[in-house]
Amino acid sequence: MIKIGILGYGNLGRGVEAAIKQSPDMELTGVYTRRSPDSLKINTEGVAVRNASELEQKRDDIDVLVICGGSATDLPAMTPKYAKLYNVIDSFDTHARIPEHFANVDAAAKAGETVGIISCGWDPGMFSVNRLYSTSILPVGNAYTFWGKGVSQGHSDAVRRIEGVLDARQYTIPVEKALNSVRAGENPELTTREKHTRECFVVAEDGADLARIENEIKTMPNYFDEYDTTVHFISAEEMKRDHSGLPHGGSVIYSGQTSGGNNHVVEYSLNLDSNPEFTGAVLIAYARAAYKLSGEKSFGAKTVFDIAPAYLSPLSGDELRAHYL
Amino acid sequence: MIKIGILGYGNLGRGVEAAIKQSPDMELTGVYTRRSPDSLKINTEGVAVRNASELEQKRDDIDVLVICGGSATDLPAMTPKYAKLYNVIDSFDTHARIPEHFANVDAAAKAGETVGIISCGWDPGMFSVNRLYSTSILPVGNAYTFWGKGVSQGHSDAVRRIEGVLDARQYTIPVEKALNSVRAGENPELTTREKHTRECFVVAEDGADLARIENEIKTMPNYFDEYDTTVHFISAEEMKRDHSGLPHGGSVIYSGQTSGGNNHVVEYSLNLDSNPEFTGAVLIAYARAAYKLSGEKSFGAKTVFDIAPAYLSPLSGDELRAHYL
Repeated sequence: MIKIGILGYGNLGRGVEAAIKQSPDMELTGVYTRRSPDSLKINTEGVAVRNASELEQKRDDIDVLVICGGSATDLPAMTPKYAKLYNVIDSFDTHARIPEHFANVDAAAKAGETVGIISCGWDPGMFSVNRLYSTSILPVGNAYTFWGKGVSQGHSDAVRRIEGVLDARQYTIPVEKALNSVRAGENPELTTREKHTRECFVVAEDGADLARIENEIKTMPNYFDEYDTTVHFISAEEMKRDHSGLPHGGSVIYSGQTSGGNNHVVEYSLNLDSNPEFTGAVLIAYARAAYKLSGEKSFGAKTVFDIAPAYLSPLSGDELRAHYL
Repeated sequence: MIKIGILGYGNLGRGVEAAIKQSPDMELTGVYTRRSPDSLKINTEGVAVRNASELEQKRDDIDVLVICGGSATDLPAMTPKYAKLYNVIDSFDTHARIPEHFANVDAAAKAGETVGIISCGWDPGMFSVNRLYSTSILPVGNAYTFWGKGVSQGHSDAVRRIEGVLDARQYTIPVEKALNSVRAGENPELTTREKHTRECFVVAEDGADLARIENEIKTMPNYFDEYDTTVHFISAEEMKRDHSGLPHGGSVIYSGQTSGGNNHVVEYSLNLDSNPEFTGAVLIAYARAAYKLSGEKSFGAKTVFDIAPAYLSPLSGDELRAHYL
């Protein structure tokens, strides 16, 4: 059994926990938190909740530590720190800082003789893998990534920070016309506005200036100003009833031409009822890879690009060739 | 430059040749044929056409030999034979015989200190990779593979063997209702008949008994009897005008459940104007992997399951992490 520790028990940590329950070759041996362990009630019977400080001395009951922190400040510090002691995996998703994060984790993991898999999940993650396969197979062509329909937590948070907003949920929605053009192999050039729209559901304080809130959302730089955004004011009850899930998804569509003059469209799409549960499931499949790579002494930082698909499976090469090829 | 030889110059060999033209790190150094070399006119200027017998003595102008033969009798003999001397790659697609073929190529490649990648293309190949990723990430769920709309060469050949048939083209067509049910996460149980229909375009001899031909097609065991098949009799001119391409494609759809109770649908789909050109492009991307693996002395037989995505790209790890993750 591969012994898994989870550091951080938010939505993603619970998604990882859910995935371990479906993995016959894995067991959860502990959840680690920076909060008071007594304050956490987890979904797995008989598993200890411990303070993160207990990870500082190398523990024998962790083969792979799954680090479920935020990309802004948590993961840049935590993943290199724990890579010195444990095989680790994270979902670092600040694309521009991936090279720096990779270098830091690589140095720590090589020093600690561990494996550190970074930027795992679906984007970065499975979407990246599909972009790479397609561009490698069809070097002449265009890659398009569409997100949604789904909840963007970053955009929801941005709306919540506006004065007078009690709660908010933001859905990113791909534009059907753009999707259809790409799927038809038309290779369109698309602006930001032409690719996605944004839809916000907002619970406002009693007596708040709704027109001012709507205007602040629609003109918010980086988050909304380049998009067509619709805003709906709803009640707290409606929010709870209709918007408590965290669905997401999207498509990587590659439209490529071979030199014989033919066009080929390759699409990888996800339709996820729960973003954190799917992301957790991806992390757990790659945690298995980290464990196997560690056994082969293939130490250092890795990404999804560096890991052969067979490493994600509990099955042997013989079984995979006989039944999955 | 990676030096590529092509053995066999049918549709697939020409597809491989087309892919090499788009690969800046590769050059075609020779086309090898069992026919008379003089009878072949290839699409690359200045490249020699040689008899296959010239491969028997190890040649220095081949880093990877792409073997474009049939799975029934060619590849089981040719791939192990040439793996003793060259890094090789094939598109062996008789699923039931893959374990045996793998073992034969593995023994030859280990003896010859070469790399032999078998069963490469899109099914087996990219479809297999996607089946494996999805089942590894979501172990509880169902994988569905749909083929088409596209030309099945095996079925077209089967119709051509019927008495009175001059030419035939068979399209495999996925049933829209089944596709939609799978995409909706309904996890249906589907019979063969419910998944695909078959459509045949037939040029018959003058005076042939069309009713007899149609009946022979529709009742042909293994090929047609389990499907709803439609048959259209057309002229040779219509065949040439409307059915001279070799489009194909399909979808691998995985519908999985996480233990939190949520459903997730993952779809990988291909819409290919030219089946052999796309398959050739996949072979060439994996030929690059064979070359790299050979440089690392990772000898023996491999499949797409054993090869990390980065091996398919001419770019460095730094470039891939900076721009594709």
